[in-house]
Amino acid sequence: MSIPFFSKLRNRKAHLRTVKAELQKVRDAIESQTEQFSPHMRDYMRQVCRSRGKMIRPGLVLLTAAATGGIKDDHITFAALLEMLHMASLIHDDVLDKADTRRDEPTPNALWGNELAVLLGDSLLAQAMVMGADIGDSRFIRRMAVAVRDLCEGEVEQSTRLWDMEMSRADYYELIRKKTATLFAMAMSGAGYLQGLDDEMIGHLNRMGTLLGISYQIYDDCLDMTGTDDSAGKTLGTDAEKGKLTLPVFFLMESTSEDVAEYVRSAVEKHEEIDYARLRDTDAFAEAIRLSVDEGLSRNEEAREVLWMLPESPAREALTEMTYRLDEMLRDCLV
Amino acid sequence: MSIPFFSKLRNRKAHLRTVKAELQKVRDAIESQTEQFSPHMRDYMRQVCRSRGKMIRPGLVLLTAAATGGIKDDHITFAALLEMLHMASLIHDDVLDKADTRRDEPTPNALWGNELAVLLGDSLLAQAMVMGADIGDSRFIRRMAVAVRDLCEGEVEQSTRLWDMEMSRADYYELIRKKTATLFAMAMSGAGYLQGLDDEMIGHLNRMGTLLGISYQIYDDCLDMTGTDDSAGKTLGTDAEKGKLTLPVFFLMESTSEDVAEYVRSAVEKHEEIDYARLRDTDAFAEAIRLSVDEGLSRNEEAREVLWMLPESPAREALTEMTYRLDEMLRDCLV
Repeated sequence: MSIPFFSKLRNRKAHLRTVKAELQKVRDAIESQTEQFSPHMRDYMRQVCRSRGKMIRPGLVLLTAAATGGIKDDHITFAALLEMLHMASLIHDDVLDKADTRRDEPTPNALWGNELAVLLGDSLLAQAMVMGADIGDSRFIRRMAVAVRDLCEGEVEQSTRLWDMEMSRADYYELIRKKTATLFAMAMSGAGYLQGLDDEMIGHLNRMGTLLGISYQIYDDCLDMTGTDDSAGKTLGTDAEKGKLTLPVFFLMESTSEDVAEYVRSAVEKHEEIDYARLRDTDAFAEAIRLSVDEGLSRNEEAREVLWMLPESPAREALTEMTYRLDEMLRDCLV
Repeated sequence: MSIPFFSKLRNRKAHLRTVKAELQKVRDAIESQTEQFSPHMRDYMRQVCRSRGKMIRPGLVLLTAAATGGIKDDHITFAALLEMLHMASLIHDDVLDKADTRRDEPTPNALWGNELAVLLGDSLLAQAMVMGADIGDSRFIRRMAVAVRDLCEGEVEQSTRLWDMEMSRADYYELIRKKTATLFAMAMSGAGYLQGLDDEMIGHLNRMGTLLGISYQIYDDCLDMTGTDDSAGKTLGTDAEKGKLTLPVFFLMESTSEDVAEYVRSAVEKHEEIDYARLRDTDAFAEAIRLSVDEGLSRNEEAREVLWMLPESPAREALTEMTYRLDEMLRDCLV
């Protein structure tokens, strides 16, 4: 960590270690869920559930729980089911994108074909709902189901609005809210709900999750344009190839540099891949990234305002640090 | 109807008319659900929800409700959500089977590609869960989610056990219980649950739904081997092509006619399509179908025993008739 503010927080570090131990419980919970499937399906599920993601959503659940009174068993189950929902959406994504690898592992569709991959995703989704029903009431599960619906809607909008000149920046924000921020928001508000917090506080946590999710997606979209495959650990530049209109693209189309704006608009109109090699050294490109990064930073700032409402605790500090870490990741995208 | 027993039931006919009117309410409910999706997705959903199925599951919900105290608004919602779950599974099926048409209409994957079709199925599934949470408590939704999981497991087992000599007749029954009978059972037991019946009665209804679902699938499997495309309204003979081991196939492999048994076993071992043209005129073939039909008939008989526990009513008579109608459909498969 390069931000001195945090290197002093010894408690926080101890606390992050605790959360790390709890994350292992979440992994164990996911693994034990594979036992719920029929013997014939268990092997597939085991292999699917072995994949190691960044566990961002479970991390948010655990930190929020720890910051609001402590991590209960239901929080572990909830963290596990959110990761399973996320896994289900990745499995279906990989089918849609015909992707062969993810996190350096072969994808389910590459291993066993589209047929099985679609069904494994469906099963994970169903099992996550079963788990939700084990820990929450119908209002809680309703919110989960709405989150899944939003997630799908975001994906549908993304896949049907490629190279869509009619799309506005507001549409982009709504799209990433659904596609990415929904599960972040669910992680934080759900953790608060299972803690028995009041509706107002749950609403604040929901807003904070939404802000962080949007900021995270902005970071991901900037990274796709400015990062290197090696440092990002995945293939970049795919948004331009597919015609996804991300935040920097909007800023490029609105650029005061008429040449750049003209070029990008015409590429989008003609459904042609934007050639970033041609733009990367222009001031307009740097400006578009800077404006995008600023949008992310301001959301993190707003998210921190919610955090001040929580009682001071090592977990609150850890959440605060997360937002600063995201600031840093955003700034690393600057060119 | 050729069974005289029923032509006398004048009340029943009036009652079936009532249920028919209620089925229209279910269709309207499905249609109104399309409003729950974002404007961008609504058109796709409208088109998906316009497709007209046989509405067997909604029919079971309504008749069970009517036979146990009357059809309530929640029953309409429940019937709609079950049909939506069924639609979701058909949409994913069509993606998996690369099917271009269903019920003489182009499938979503044919119209808009696999990507959108997978996501539309996911969205329908999520929306069905939202609706479940609107009418039931967490125990109710848990059962719904388990049903969806079972459905997926059945599909996975089917697609991974093609030409599988290790598969037993017991495995077949468990497979079709999951794949088909689960939603039938959910329809009847869920209707009873929403009616406020006690657990014992709900258990009976669940068993009856399971029996009917298994019997219906046996009928469908026999039809695939003995029917004609025209009368069935769909392409038949696809089970043999794909290597699905259905009930008549097990009876053929166990046939006392050594020639036939040998031929079928060797075709399965070699993963070759069984050539029914070669078998259709043999006694062994007729016997395999007859044994299969008997298995269906005995389940219908058992299902009727549950019906006698319900108070006498036109709706109970209509349910009884359904089981006799299924008897008839099974017998029509005899060669």
